[in-house]
Amino acid sequence: MSTRTVIESKTKTVVIGFDEPFCVIGERINPTGRKKLAAELEAGDFSTVEQDALDQVACGAMVLDVNSGAVFTNKMAEDPRYADNNFVEPPLMKELVERVQAIVDVPLCIDSSVPGALENGLEAAEGRPLLNSVTGEEERLELVLPLVKKYNVPVVAISNDDTGISEDPEVRFAVAKKIVERAADYGIPAHDIVVDPLVMPVGAMATAGQQVFTLVRRLRDELGVNTTCGASNVSFGLPHRHGINAAFLPMAIGAGMTSAIMNPIRAVEMEAIRAANFLMNHDPNGGEWIRFSRVLDAVAEGETFIDASKAAMASGGGRGGREGRRRRRG
Amino acid sequence: MSTRTVIESKTKTVVIGFDEPFCVIGERINPTGRKKLAAELEAGDFSTVEQDALDQVACGAMVLDVNSGAVFTNKMAEDPRYADNNFVEPPLMKELVERVQAIVDVPLCIDSSVPGALENGLEAAEGRPLLNSVTGEEERLELVLPLVKKYNVPVVAISNDDTGISEDPEVRFAVAKKIVERAADYGIPAHDIVVDPLVMPVGAMATAGQQVFTLVRRLRDELGVNTTCGASNVSFGLPHRHGINAAFLPMAIGAGMTSAIMNPIRAVEMEAIRAANFLMNHDPNGGEWIRFSRVLDAVAEGETFIDASKAAMASGGGRGGREGRRRRRG
Repeated sequence: MSTRTVIESKTKTVVIGFDEPFCVIGERINPTGRKKLAAELEAGDFSTVEQDALDQVACGAMVLDVNSGAVFTNKMAEDPRYADNNFVEPPLMKELVERVQAIVDVPLCIDSSVPGALENGLEAAEGRPLLNSVTGEEERLELVLPLVKKYNVPVVAISNDDTGISEDPEVRFAVAKKIVERAADYGIPAHDIVVDPLVMPVGAMATAGQQVFTLVRRLRDELGVNTTCGASNVSFGLPHRHGINAAFLPMAIGAGMTSAIMNPIRAVEMEAIRAANFLMNHDPNGGEWIRFSRVLDAVAEGETFIDASKAAMASGGGRGGREGRRRRRG
Repeated sequence: MSTRTVIESKTKTVVIGFDEPFCVIGERINPTGRKKLAAELEAGDFSTVEQDALDQVACGAMVLDVNSGAVFTNKMAEDPRYADNNFVEPPLMKELVERVQAIVDVPLCIDSSVPGALENGLEAAEGRPLLNSVTGEEERLELVLPLVKKYNVPVVAISNDDTGISEDPEVRFAVAKKIVERAADYGIPAHDIVVDPLVMPVGAMATAGQQVFTLVRRLRDELGVNTTCGASNVSFGLPHRHGINAAFLPMAIGAGMTSAIMNPIRAVEMEAIRAANFLMNHDPNGGEWIRFSRVLDAVAEGETFIDASKAAMASGGGRGGREGRRRRRG
């Protein structure tokens, strides 16, 4: 089986697949829960967004998630239309996408709960973005799958439905299966569905890790789909979260997980992913590992991970993986 | 399937098993390649051995490997009998075992290529030690399996035979199968065989990681045996070895590996193992993780990992796992 989910920017191609390096989707361009960022966006200031785009790509993000879920508090006080995300998000998504792809050339993941924002993002994005997301909720299926078909893009499918998020992994598998089948009715192939089996916090549910490893394997073997997750959720509420995340990611990769939506500016998690790529035989001759080890050397000497990553990128290191994939495109 | 390999010290029981925390076997009491230690042992000085025993147990070793492979250079110059390991090792093993179990109460792993040293170690050890090792070599099978039977102990089975170490994982699996079958002829059950599928350096063999993950799963599913490995071999020759090891161990644990012979005084690897235990649901309520996180806090404040681990042990932390297992014994 060679499931390949192809996503593109203006000139770059990234393939999510069983035989590819793990796809790191940078999560930082997201005003949800980032009040300072939301306020900047309300004021028309995109400098943090641009900085986040550059930093994440330097640190190894292969795709950037762009989420338009901002609340414009001041404008809302003046104009009640701003209380409606259907009013706020569509023009914001358009501008976010344009700003981000003006400064970095990596595929985007268009992320919103607002259909108008999804469509505006799809319109504005160059290449072939990933859409984030559809769920098993009836209304969501009927709104999002036509967009997926119309724009011929892959989509993240989250394993919850109208009954909510089940703690039973069998139910979450069944929801994923339903989405894949419903997509097929629209002519959308399984290789364009990237299932998020939903990662629970292991501090609250002792079986959370094992559930994910089992689900990922089944999703791959039985449905033939790629997978993604919000990786850091597994360590929610625990001390030394990075340590949990840095073990979870290699274990998930070993089980067959092919991407994650995560914060790439953390060295510990990125080290774990790069080591796992090497151990999965997705880093020929260890070239990426050796390049990354020079970044770790610089960090050990006191540089920040972002600065060390940027220096490595400027000297031609750190882009090998993406350039390599790009060459494969032709 | 509930394969349980039971090993014991004078009063403590450790179970290696699919439903148990990963069993860390401390590798440091080994004069091979440690010239200074070999010279100390030659002079009858066991202080480093005792320190290594205490340090490793404090850092989380559940079992201590005791290897007698010393070369006594000075004595050899005076008396040619010292050129023969069959002369040097048996009395040395006896003294090593006695010294170690006088100072720590954890099960031992009796490790030698010399049959007389294995037998002396088995005689001297209290409880039920693990024997290290048998291979698929005919001479070795015929020498070691009778000892395993006579002393009713479990044994590490290394997947090489008279043709050497095969790079083909199918051959290594077949060697393991042969050892399990030969052991059965002696009345030794599969749950007393702990197979080492042999970990190759990923820098020299790109498929090394995947070979191990696949082999561990097959050994577990098809032969019903526990597994171990020399984990650090996977990163041989590479920069930032700890990063490779710290991803390899959780991936191996996720694939079903149940123990490793390794250096437990390295925080990075031990953190990866403790996180993996939690994610495998082998750390009820995360109690071990939370205790360990306090050790990491102390390390972040500048303490050494050994000192921080000893302080945690003195305050009653860090022993929960073993005490927990001990209670289950009755």
